[in-house]
Amino acid sequence: MDTKGLGTNMICQVGLVVRDVEASAKMYSQVFGMPKPDVRITDEASIARTMYRGKPTSARAKLAFFDMGQVTLELIEPLGAPSTWQEFLDEKGEGVHHIAFRVKGTDEVVAFLSGKGIEVAQQGHYTGGMYTYLDSGSALGVVLELLEDFA
Amino acid sequence: MDTKGLGTNMICQVGLVVRDVEASAKMYSQVFGMPKPDVRITDEASIARTMYRGKPTSARAKLAFFDMGQVTLELIEPLGAPSTWQEFLDEKGEGVHHIAFRVKGTDEVVAFLSGKGIEVAQQGHYTGGMYTYLDSGSALGVVLELLEDFA
Repeated sequence: MDTKGLGTNMICQVGLVVRDVEASAKMYSQVFGMPKPDVRITDEASIARTMYRGKPTSARAKLAFFDMGQVTLELIEPLGAPSTWQEFLDEKGEGVHHIAFRVKGTDEVVAFLSGKGIEVAQQGHYTGGMYTYLDSGSALGVVLELLEDFA
Repeated sequence: MDTKGLGTNMICQVGLVVRDVEASAKMYSQVFGMPKPDVRITDEASIARTMYRGKPTSARAKLAFFDMGQVTLELIEPLGAPSTWQEFLDEKGEGVHHIAFRVKGTDEVVAFLSGKGIEVAQQGHYTGGMYTYLDSGSALGVVLELLEDFA
């Protein structure tokens, strides 16, 4: 087991699950006096290759991002199909789904967390990198996300 | 109505409500390889002068803080009596309760947010400053906290 842990404690993203990303993005832009960002959709299954609780899923989501200093605020509207986003929305309603950290060597970090009893909930790819959501709700009260950009 | 809004979009704190702050702080310290911080308790009512939904409350909480770069991670164990912390735990379970911002002129910011339909949920004092939680769950999916240190 790798003992370096996450290798970082710098939160780089706070991710919220919302019901209507256009409406939420508009409200955030008004409250914070920031331009409303464009809403984009996660990559299709052939690129994302999303795995949810060990099985492939066609789940996608609409996303909007706000820069808030060190931290990016991510708004996520799940579009159905099984995912950690949809699960959160169904169980908890709108709210903060995850806090994210940039890591190097996702597999080693995942092995370290597994040693703490925290397993992978969902994993997928985006152009230039991959993300991993950990099933850390019961241990930490919130999902951790690992973000790794490929060099 | 003041039009400057919050005057900041730099998230300075992410606050989680947990059931057992000692257990959660231990788990966070293990996952992030950080020393377990001391747990402290919020000030007693005579200092905190806490107001919850327009009424004085004797609510207190146990707190632990982790530095995560620009952001402080705050763990909050509510100790009963009506509060936004207890309300969140009862309705949602453990999870991210708020994101916080440092402001100047809380009253002006509160007036600005009231103009957006976002009202105060809880307000209180600590040595050297005050905090304000907004009832922004339905508008933004998360409670906003305004932190103002007195010069």
